[in-house]
Amino acid sequence: MTSASGAATTISDLGEFGLIAAVTAGRSDAPQVLIGPGDDAAQVATPGGSILISTDTLVSGRHFRFDWSSAYDVGRRAAAANLADIAAMGGVATALTIGFAAPGDLESQWAVELSQGIADEAALVGAHIVGGDVTAADEVMVCITVIGRAGEQVVRRNGASPGEVVGLRGRIGWAAAGLAVLGRGFRSPRVVVEAHRRPEPPYDAGPQAATAGATSMIDVSDGLIADLGHVAESSGVAIDIASEAFEVAEPLVSVGAAIGVDPRSFMLTGGDDHPLAATFPADAELPEGWTAIGEVREGSGVTVDGEEYEAAAGHEHFR
Amino acid sequence: MTSASGAATTISDLGEFGLIAAVTAGRSDAPQVLIGPGDDAAQVATPGGSILISTDTLVSGRHFRFDWSSAYDVGRRAAAANLADIAAMGGVATALTIGFAAPGDLESQWAVELSQGIADEAALVGAHIVGGDVTAADEVMVCITVIGRAGEQVVRRNGASPGEVVGLRGRIGWAAAGLAVLGRGFRSPRVVVEAHRRPEPPYDAGPQAATAGATSMIDVSDGLIADLGHVAESSGVAIDIASEAFEVAEPLVSVGAAIGVDPRSFMLTGGDDHPLAATFPADAELPEGWTAIGEVREGSGVTVDGEEYEAAAGHEHFR
Repeated sequence: MTSASGAATTISDLGEFGLIAAVTAGRSDAPQVLIGPGDDAAQVATPGGSILISTDTLVSGRHFRFDWSSAYDVGRRAAAANLADIAAMGGVATALTIGFAAPGDLESQWAVELSQGIADEAALVGAHIVGGDVTAADEVMVCITVIGRAGEQVVRRNGASPGEVVGLRGRIGWAAAGLAVLGRGFRSPRVVVEAHRRPEPPYDAGPQAATAGATSMIDVSDGLIADLGHVAESSGVAIDIASEAFEVAEPLVSVGAAIGVDPRSFMLTGGDDHPLAATFPADAELPEGWTAIGEVREGSGVTVDGEEYEAAAGHEHFR
Repeated sequence: MTSASGAATTISDLGEFGLIAAVTAGRSDAPQVLIGPGDDAAQVATPGGSILISTDTLVSGRHFRFDWSSAYDVGRRAAAANLADIAAMGGVATALTIGFAAPGDLESQWAVELSQGIADEAALVGAHIVGGDVTAADEVMVCITVIGRAGEQVVRRNGASPGEVVGLRGRIGWAAAGLAVLGRGFRSPRVVVEAHRRPEPPYDAGPQAATAGATSMIDVSDGLIADLGHVAESSGVAIDIASEAFEVAEPLVSVGAAIGVDPRSFMLTGGDDHPLAATFPADAELPEGWTAIGEVREGSGVTVDGEEYEAAAGHEHFR
């Protein structure tokens, strides 16, 4: 594989999503693979039913900093990212495995607290750590795989149709505001710093939306515009977000004012809060706790109030 | 957690197995966890049945070297280590996820070939890659999680009883001989170098042994003495290996002669070949392809011809 210039293509050149596309290209379908790569979780047939499975990796210095997050918080966050993926399919997580790599001079207490954080976050949905692997490495890496029960309706990214309503449930923009604050050397407002350290995904929102007839759903991990972009692309539709639908919480207003940033940018492009976004039929009443934030249209891409949003749209590794 | 000297305990101090014990200590049992941490794979109840799940991580410079193994071979090896864990429970792997971390300047073709290796090895048992995650890191890390169907009999490590026969099926010592050769700057005998690069676990031996009434089973990944030590400890028994039961293959004899090492040491302490070892009732006829290599006794620990084996016993991370 070479680039236009003739040099070998690196994974930076391809980017995270390009690499995933290259790696999964041409994979044959198998009868047990009900949903393959490309959604929040895969669905695999089992004797008597099916399970959902998803994996996510955190690397020190990239996804977390030792001076910003405790081991326990890294565990909570790593687990939350995985558990939210199962929720986003309308399922409930049941078990996790941990691949843990770290330098030999890391204090063992760090690993113990990490796993306690993972276990406590998993307990919120009744899931348990069932296995793992530890290995030596220069960096700390936490690779969590989660499996879960599928609900009666498994909700994918590709089911949105023009005319439908886009709904959101869960905090959004808080973790990004917390990261902005920490990046400038501050530790307050404490609520947003805590939101970065320990997201609070609305796990029950997944099965709730599935039961209410959601036609597509996604865990917002990379930013609302970026993640709704995945829904739009998978579904072959456009999505327009109505910015006035968002109530900007007070801490986001303060952070925005303090650092000279429109607080809505945290909500539109900030990741790591793991709210769920879903589309519902136009005539559906949104389930409790969900807010209508936009609509599905003919076309492609994601707009805000009908226009392209100018800020950087979401985080992508290697870019 | 502090050591006897008062300094904080590092994960090097605890070692791989000590760390696993610390991390899994006090984890409560849950109804869906049929087999928890500590075996080759966990078993988790699903609606209508159960699945097996296991995870394993490879790190560049530690588990593989770019100049010794191609990306494709690393993929084959990483997948083999995981698939063998499912076989060692008597099960059959069905699906894998890949957590992949790498520096941005890695050629994308490396990642593509890695995943092809994983896919091809998985295809040997009918398993498929169903998902993954890619992220930036300084080192290349491959964290594979595999799920599989449990057979009618799930075979654990803890079922061996005194008087039983220890059986082995699959190549043993070849990968260690290959590693010894590569470590001395040679590339031959080619068969052992290839065995290091691409193990050939006898995947069907797992379900075969389960059907034949195996009372315990393990994937030999860290060395025969080390891994039978896990069986002995879990089962509360001693195991004695009869060295004359091993036929030393010609390539191991040559490598041993060339580097001045007893070739049996490759077979007793070398890892990464992934044969399966199992215990069978004393009166059982070993299934086809299995060789009797020892017996289960009262007591604890693993001996060779009744005596402690003097060489280093197996690989442990952080030691």
